Amino acid sequence: MTHAAVVDFETYLDESADRVTVALDALIPRAEGPEARLLSAMRYAALGGGKRLRPFFVLQCGRLFDVDERGLLRVAAALECVHTYSLVHDDLPCMDDDDFRRGRPTVHRAYDEATAVLAGDALQALAFEIICHVDTHSDPRVRADLAASLARASGARGLVGGQMIDLEMEGADVDVGIVTRMQRMKTGALIGFAATAGGIMARASDDARQALAGFAHDLGVAYQIVDDLLDVEGDPNILGKAARKDLGRGKATFVAALGVEGARDQARRLAAQAKQHLDHFGSGATLLRQAVDFVLNRNV
Amino acid sequence: MTHAAVVDFETYLDESADRVTVALDALIPRAEGPEARLLSAMRYAALGGGKRLRPFFVLQCGRLFDVDERGLLRVAAALECVHTYSLVHDDLPCMDDDDFRRGRPTVHRAYDEATAVLAGDALQALAFEIICHVDTHSDPRVRADLAASLARASGARGLVGGQMIDLEMEGADVDVGIVTRMQRMKTGALIGFAATAGGIMARASDDARQALAGFAHDLGVAYQIVDDLLDVEGDPNILGKAARKDLGRGKATFVAALGVEGARDQARRLAAQAKQHLDHFGSGATLLRQAVDFVLNRNV
Repeated sequence: MTHAAVVDFETYLDESADRVTVALDALIPRAEGPEARLLSAMRYAALGGGKRLRPFFVLQCGRLFDVDERGLLRVAAALECVHTYSLVHDDLPCMDDDDFRRGRPTVHRAYDEATAVLAGDALQALAFEIICHVDTHSDPRVRADLAASLARASGARGLVGGQMIDLEMEGADVDVGIVTRMQRMKTGALIGFAATAGGIMARASDDARQALAGFAHDLGVAYQIVDDLLDVEGDPNILGKAARKDLGRGKATFVAALGVEGARDQARRLAAQAKQHLDHFGSGATLLRQAVDFVLNRNV
Repeated sequence: MTHAAVVDFETYLDESADRVTVALDALIPRAEGPEARLLSAMRYAALGGGKRLRPFFVLQCGRLFDVDERGLLRVAAALECVHTYSLVHDDLPCMDDDDFRRGRPTVHRAYDEATAVLAGDALQALAFEIICHVDTHSDPRVRADLAASLARASGARGLVGGQMIDLEMEGADVDVGIVTRMQRMKTGALIGFAATAGGIMARASDDARQALAGFAHDLGVAYQIVDDLLDVEGDPNILGKAARKDLGRGKATFVAALGVEGARDQARRLAAQAKQHLDHFGSGATLLRQAVDFVLNRNV
């Protein structure tokens, strides 16, 4: 990827992140009334920045099918609500016990633990409220299918189940099979939803949906491997959170299973595979190809 | 209400509770695979008994419109997943810090805090997965409307917002207006969903839906007043949880705002009002009228 392409892509990513933040700002109620503290914590968590990579994939994969932009933004915002709630709960003292996230105190540090639990709970409910609203898509079948798909990706067989396995594997012997399975649930499920939501909204062909599901799978694992590498090699000042925490805790990571070089090779292979899935969409998927390179080479 | 009617009603309630438990048992995956611990905690929380009063209202209010029983049971189970997750999170040390629930150790005592947070999160996701599945209703518009309605009732302007206000009011001066508003959100929102879900599924008339919404509102407040009275006067051995906890914590309750006698009078008035809303349905609502008496006179 040339330097110009990198700049272009990061500009696109920033623009897309800004638009999702604007959508979230409009969709999360103002912090007013007796429940102001709760709403304030939800806004603090959801509007505090972040790469908004999952929303980016919702928007870009939806554009492959010319899906209405307003609906895509709502789905992107709903997905970000789920992703954000999972970070708020994962940061709690009883889970990963993190004090910083995106360069700011975590929600339970800025507010308190009870507020963090409740803000997460309310963000999950809001995600489904957003998805099921008629403004997301005029066809109620699409809305119901999107909600069902997001619920599956978020639940015991997806995001939450992956987090449970992650906690249980601390200190255990790991092999790459178990780590891959855990990460397919913990990270892969939401990335899979991000990549396929547009296909649901456009009632795209099975071939197209399968290509995007394959893309999401390979990309999701590559993303997590890079995350694990950044924990070992990253700069906490750039990351906005502590580094080298996984190693200290005996977390089951790809680096623990494959070593640094093995993990890096595996990420490269998966990134190449992810791009192959995009062949289905020809030149329409140029930005998505750049996104794969971005994921592979990111330092944050 | 005659003694025979009470016996009849309690038999109905028990039967309905059993059927909802069977439905939940089928809908929450077996505790197998690497996420077994999570699934086990979800099952422990959801299958551990309880009156299943909210599911009862789903079933009985749905029968007013001859709604398909299988769909009603799924909605009742989904609602119970939300109710259960909220109990699991409310019991956490950072919230109400309760060790017992329904006569057994709470989830964070039987498992651990992280597992309790995650089991709650996964139960919420499961609720929407159940609602949005085609088996719940053949019309996708109904599924999307049910999910939207449950999400609103569960979120920052409903259940979760009410719990936030409840925590914030501890030790503060309370008046009946604030307590009523808090309880309309914390308890009333889910009871409102329970009473109106059948109307959504049957696409019932606005009149019928309004009558049930009014019924749910008055019943919900009456229910909470009795809950507050039981905290003061109830027997912990029968309740299956600690009593007199609210008072010790300076919780904002109806008893704190109205006194014991004032609260009891108010509960009676609301119960009578709740029954008036049922006039719309004539003799078809006999069991629902008995349910109002049960709520008013319950000792558990």
